[in-house]
Amino acid sequence: MPTKIFLDEKDIPRQWYNLAADLPTPLQPPLGPDGNPITPDMLAPVFPMNLIEQEVSQERWIDIPEEILEILYRWRPSPLYRAKALEKALDTPARIYYKNEGVSPPGSHKPNTAVAQAWYNKQFGIKRLTTETGAGQWGSALSFACALIGLECKVFMVRISFDQKPFRRLMMETWGGHCIPSPSEETNAGRAILEKMPDTPGSLGIAISEAIEAAVTDPKGETRYALGSVLNHVMLHQTIIGLEAKKQLEKANEKKVDVVIGCAGGGSNFAGLSFPFVADKINGADIKIIPVEPTSCPTLTRAPFCYDHGDTAKMTPLLPMHSLGHDFVPPAIHAGGLRYHGMAPLVSQAAVEGLLEPMALHQIECYEAALLWAKTEGFISAPETSHAIAATIREAKQAKEEGKEKVIIMNWSGHGLMDLTGYQAFLEGRLHDYPLPDEELAKSLKGIEGLPKPSEAKSGKW
Amino acid sequence: MPTKIFLDEKDIPRQWYNLAADLPTPLQPPLGPDGNPITPDMLAPVFPMNLIEQEVSQERWIDIPEEILEILYRWRPSPLYRAKALEKALDTPARIYYKNEGVSPPGSHKPNTAVAQAWYNKQFGIKRLTTETGAGQWGSALSFACALIGLECKVFMVRISFDQKPFRRLMMETWGGHCIPSPSEETNAGRAILEKMPDTPGSLGIAISEAIEAAVTDPKGETRYALGSVLNHVMLHQTIIGLEAKKQLEKANEKKVDVVIGCAGGGSNFAGLSFPFVADKINGADIKIIPVEPTSCPTLTRAPFCYDHGDTAKMTPLLPMHSLGHDFVPPAIHAGGLRYHGMAPLVSQAAVEGLLEPMALHQIECYEAALLWAKTEGFISAPETSHAIAATIREAKQAKEEGKEKVIIMNWSGHGLMDLTGYQAFLEGRLHDYPLPDEELAKSLKGIEGLPKPSEAKSGKW
Repeated sequence: MPTKIFLDEKDIPRQWYNLAADLPTPLQPPLGPDGNPITPDMLAPVFPMNLIEQEVSQERWIDIPEEILEILYRWRPSPLYRAKALEKALDTPARIYYKNEGVSPPGSHKPNTAVAQAWYNKQFGIKRLTTETGAGQWGSALSFACALIGLECKVFMVRISFDQKPFRRLMMETWGGHCIPSPSEETNAGRAILEKMPDTPGSLGIAISEAIEAAVTDPKGETRYALGSVLNHVMLHQTIIGLEAKKQLEKANEKKVDVVIGCAGGGSNFAGLSFPFVADKINGADIKIIPVEPTSCPTLTRAPFCYDHGDTAKMTPLLPMHSLGHDFVPPAIHAGGLRYHGMAPLVSQAAVEGLLEPMALHQIECYEAALLWAKTEGFISAPETSHAIAATIREAKQAKEEGKEKVIIMNWSGHGLMDLTGYQAFLEGRLHDYPLPDEELAKSLKGIEGLPKPSEAKSGKW
Repeated sequence: MPTKIFLDEKDIPRQWYNLAADLPTPLQPPLGPDGNPITPDMLAPVFPMNLIEQEVSQERWIDIPEEILEILYRWRPSPLYRAKALEKALDTPARIYYKNEGVSPPGSHKPNTAVAQAWYNKQFGIKRLTTETGAGQWGSALSFACALIGLECKVFMVRISFDQKPFRRLMMETWGGHCIPSPSEETNAGRAILEKMPDTPGSLGIAISEAIEAAVTDPKGETRYALGSVLNHVMLHQTIIGLEAKKQLEKANEKKVDVVIGCAGGGSNFAGLSFPFVADKINGADIKIIPVEPTSCPTLTRAPFCYDHGDTAKMTPLLPMHSLGHDFVPPAIHAGGLRYHGMAPLVSQAAVEGLLEPMALHQIECYEAALLWAKTEGFISAPETSHAIAATIREAKQAKEEGKEKVIIMNWSGHGLMDLTGYQAFLEGRLHDYPLPDEELAKSLKGIEGLPKPSEAKSGKW
């Protein structure tokens, strides 16, 4: 039994899978400021129409353009690993597989959609993309994609990350990305904040506002905005992970998968691996599908399914999703990519349908898992990914207790070589867990009072 | 034509190739303090006997133990890439291939030998390895290997790197390595230096002295020392790179290779890719084999072939090699791994035989090449690796001038995600080239005056 199962480039999936086509209940539409469903046209200043078409598509399969595949080949198909050393350390009868998304040049799953988004924008005649980044994984991926495809890229990076993570910024600049600390003097939103709070560390909400403003105010109309998670077309582009995994499991002679695991912040790496398996589950397969989130930001495990804004500044449409409230400020856990108040509507809807079994974990358990991983499988994991590892270890231990030969597959969404300060804090015993008190959750949920309820929204199709 | 050529694990090479068996003139022996060839026994306090046997072996092929392969499978066989985007950017008729050694958990070729050395030490009953590290790539690789194999690992890291590169240290500690700044209070060598120069930034020479002392003074005899380059057994372990590459080129239907390129500091990644092709050249094949070094540390291009110590403190035996003199202090170029005064005896001897065509390049040209690489092939390269890229670009341009469809293969020895400050200096225009003035070279070569000459040494076999 090999450690890695490769897939030749000629066998790469040539279509993305769209879960929207198969959800038992159709997705609720996004709502505009007036509470009415927004139309695709209303998104046109923000995104190119070819991506908006994907955003609203109900087609089950969408062709992947050959030119996108040609770029993805730099790391795709990504290898599927059998975690033999971890299995041995746990003495589990489970067979554990993981997709290694850390082999991409920026080191995570993010470029799967960054490349697609950059390519569709280029096709549409766009010259420049703007985006925001917190910890920097998405900003790196978009800078990389724009470099290869020939677009300018401007990244508004939350100021405190900009100051604390110079290496992430340097990655973006090496690919030619223009990375500026947010709030900046370049936008009205940024200037207004700086006037009031010149010393603010910034926030993702502010950075999103600046990135959208910078896109929609380009007088030549040659700039658009790109988002690294949450939206339907982002989930779509990530499904290549799960589609590859299915072919690789077949090569490994695995007939049945029992457990599918991914960490979930906005939802994209989880969706990428799991959606093709969610489809099987809709069709009757017995699979446990686990999105893993931090207990300090428990979107799927404790937040309601509601309409809420995607950003703090309420610039985005209302999205139907599990949300802790757009005012929610999660504690400073090291898994920055999991510190998002909402969750992708497609992931949220699948959870509402009972297709998922979400799990919330504390970060110390996750770092313990990541350490065991480093000393068995060998790779140093991103702090986000460590949540998926910890859940995998729990499931493998349960398989041992039950004496069952379960097949577990996990998305190893990225390496942690740019995030070693979290490991340092853990090794030095300086790490804390942050359970979310009920009263704090109740307080942040006040922000969604008065917004429309999904149960009241007009019917699904856009 | 695919971008990547995979090799299944079942097709991995099962023997290392030993160039010592095929060199037209046998290697000269290392000499002890008395000028006489040292015996294997004299090395026993420093290395385990099974590795010493490899060091002196004249066997052409040496079996790779299955348990070593089982660990290498985490990233081996490494993919062979066709650099299609770079070819297009250069508009060259050359077909450019590269081995991606950056896919290993520590991100470079170094674990190829770290795993083997740790395994042989473990077999020999050793409990603990010591080593030194400058920039940190080797210390990371050995920490990784020791974690997986179950040895303690102590790394003496040059103090200035220890202070300036906390992420490298954190990598080692994540794998359980014990990393301490050198000079330290733990050894006589370290204490003596600290007494004289309490504020010294340290040097590789001092760190080697400390690591060897820490190994040989273990009262229980359970500790040995490990070196990441230069020695024959290190070159041996790296040949898996070139042996894989040959199989992959065959899969790509390439019948003939014209140019083989690797950067060369101590020589190990260059040897790893090139030695199997050097064997072809010895047998009459027409191949241009290029080790690439910095003009600021021009060991193969400007230094004599002589007997010299491997370290500044003259603790090692005298090795027959190209050397700038053990007192040589190279300028602070960013490619720390290429700042070594000597060169592996096997590489040096191959150069003496006329089998290699060494090239020296300035670092600004190398960073320009690395930027083009990042924007075409997508990967961010280690500053050492950028030297191989720059040479590849020169050769590809020459192929265009000559109108020849040459096949070029290069070793992409590692990623640069831990080395982004060099990119920053380059992007900000703060980078300098450092040609080596004749008089400075003459001065440092004074240090080898009076040492035995290779032409006078007793015959080759140990």
